[in-house]
Amino acid sequence: MSETPAADPSMNVYRMVTDLCAAIEPLDRQAMQAARARQVRLTKPPGSMGRLEDLSIQLAGIMARPIPRIDNKLIVVMAADHGVAEEGVSAYPTEVTAQMVRNYIQGGAAINVLAETVGARVVVVDVGVKSPIKGHPHLVTRSVGPGTGNIAREPAMSAQQAAEAISVGVDVFDSESSRGVDVVAAGEMGIANTTATAAVAAALTGAAPEEVCGRGTGLDDEGLARKIQVVRRALRLHRTDPRDPIDVLVKLGGFEIAGLVGLMLRAAAARVPVVMDGFISCTAGLIALRLCPEISEYLFAAHRSTERGHSLVLKSLGQEPLLDLRLRLGEASGAALGLYLLDAAARLLADMATFEEAGVSGPT
Amino acid sequence: MSETPAADPSMNVYRMVTDLCAAIEPLDRQAMQAARARQVRLTKPPGSMGRLEDLSIQLAGIMARPIPRIDNKLIVVMAADHGVAEEGVSAYPTEVTAQMVRNYIQGGAAINVLAETVGARVVVVDVGVKSPIKGHPHLVTRSVGPGTGNIAREPAMSAQQAAEAISVGVDVFDSESSRGVDVVAAGEMGIANTTATAAVAAALTGAAPEEVCGRGTGLDDEGLARKIQVVRRALRLHRTDPRDPIDVLVKLGGFEIAGLVGLMLRAAAARVPVVMDGFISCTAGLIALRLCPEISEYLFAAHRSTERGHSLVLKSLGQEPLLDLRLRLGEASGAALGLYLLDAAARLLADMATFEEAGVSGPT
Repeated sequence: MSETPAADPSMNVYRMVTDLCAAIEPLDRQAMQAARARQVRLTKPPGSMGRLEDLSIQLAGIMARPIPRIDNKLIVVMAADHGVAEEGVSAYPTEVTAQMVRNYIQGGAAINVLAETVGARVVVVDVGVKSPIKGHPHLVTRSVGPGTGNIAREPAMSAQQAAEAISVGVDVFDSESSRGVDVVAAGEMGIANTTATAAVAAALTGAAPEEVCGRGTGLDDEGLARKIQVVRRALRLHRTDPRDPIDVLVKLGGFEIAGLVGLMLRAAAARVPVVMDGFISCTAGLIALRLCPEISEYLFAAHRSTERGHSLVLKSLGQEPLLDLRLRLGEASGAALGLYLLDAAARLLADMATFEEAGVSGPT
Repeated sequence: MSETPAADPSMNVYRMVTDLCAAIEPLDRQAMQAARARQVRLTKPPGSMGRLEDLSIQLAGIMARPIPRIDNKLIVVMAADHGVAEEGVSAYPTEVTAQMVRNYIQGGAAINVLAETVGARVVVVDVGVKSPIKGHPHLVTRSVGPGTGNIAREPAMSAQQAAEAISVGVDVFDSESSRGVDVVAAGEMGIANTTATAAVAAALTGAAPEEVCGRGTGLDDEGLARKIQVVRRALRLHRTDPRDPIDVLVKLGGFEIAGLVGLMLRAAAARVPVVMDGFISCTAGLIALRLCPEISEYLFAAHRSTERGHSLVLKSLGQEPLLDLRLRLGEASGAALGLYLLDAAARLLADMATFEEAGVSGPT
């Protein structure tokens, strides 16, 4: 971590991302081998804890520890607004972004309740909410602008803003890292951000707008049809190159998506596992993956949401989500549930007795 | 609860079960309606917490409380041996049942680790382990016999033993109930019990032996073929009537399965939700359901295991499991993970702010 350079938003965004990616190392195969060997000695038939065993081995590789421990759990919610909201693509008005940020700070939202169930701390970041939010000790105010441009008419942001938003994610990780972070759950809030995300997902995967547009917070049929048209217009206007994820982010993305990309890249460089939430977080993960294939094994998809497009993004990520509970809230709510499973997996590896310790016979 | 009669194992087992079933009431629709109404007022798009919302409403109905709370979590592991183990149907020797019971008592098993992750207490019950286990404050010793008869040659148990084993489950619940139980997770341990369970599942559902026999703790192809033959022999020998679940239990079942049936029936009568673990616990749940259709809404399938036969039993139960993590351990390990989700669901309903409280706008 100390050897990774500080993110410098005045730097060219491509150069910045290249530096961030270069700091991500492969998993520690020796730690994974030790974890795998220990799993076989624990008092259960080998493999009988299924994916939890696989998770524990992956965590060992990420953290470079034969017996990983997840003590400090961090949940980051990146919040920003979207110019495209003016196209009528959300069931809720734009001011709900700021209102929900206040709700997170006051502890009344789903993510606050779920954070408590796993003993995680929540950091809320204003990376570009439209209406100003009063300073608060639990809010990180690092606004890149009062929401993005309307992607149906103009680029979401400038390359400079993308660099700034990415560096917000980097800085949030670094700042929290000093307090201890063993795992980070990545989530977001931003009215209309499933529209921007759909456009990004379509641009990165080549999918058609109708394959990636869902009902978001609860659009009716008419709203959904409008959303698909808006995404189609945005894709036609910007004609981004799928091999240039930064350009896709700049033209079609969001400040919170960029922030999540920075957070994920920096966490992976620090050998900290990242639990992605739903459609938006996973699409940020897909940008990170396209920028830096080495990040793949640092990422965990917490759940499969009902938002259309998420399954397609999960497939592009090569991820099998841990949960399928028909969630579609965002704000890291599904990721918080995923944190529980990662912690359980690590604890099983660490705390179960071996056959020798417990005096239990092996197979005949 | 106070009005339910004590289980009397000297009673005819059919009469006893009829009494237990009669005490199970329908869910409280008024509490469910209140919970449903509250969910809509919480600061999230309606329905966006998916199955967690449904769970919270079902818990309200079970507990007859508009805002259910899950404070006291109980995990019960029923352990017993199986005469059919002598047919070579398990990868592990019979003595592992007793050894694992000691492991549970000493806190070294997966279930102990997982119980800690959800703040649950674990009660281990010797309801018929073959080799004696020394008395221990954390062990409930209520052995019905030194394992069942070999179902390939004789009935698993007498009707009297079935009544006794069911009453063990009832008594364990009643005894724990006095310490407070808001939810119970039901699991088991017993070498060769997937064979007995496969026979029960086939007898209840009409499935063929090869549809319900899996590799258990890790049988090879030869062992699996032998297991299928053993189940076929048992089914042909006993020719049980699927409309008589008690007879199926007596001829083909196990003491721990009977104990789980008693536990589930009594918990439901006390309006306590039951989280079922894998193939064996769910098959106990299926016996309970066939005896008493009213229990259906009190039962939650925690996960879909990889054990062949489990999916078929889940379908017969009408259950969609909460998790699919390729678990196949038993001992309530999957049920413990399910407890977490039930608790999270209840806490979201109870602790989230409403739109009014948080000053958040509704849909436009």
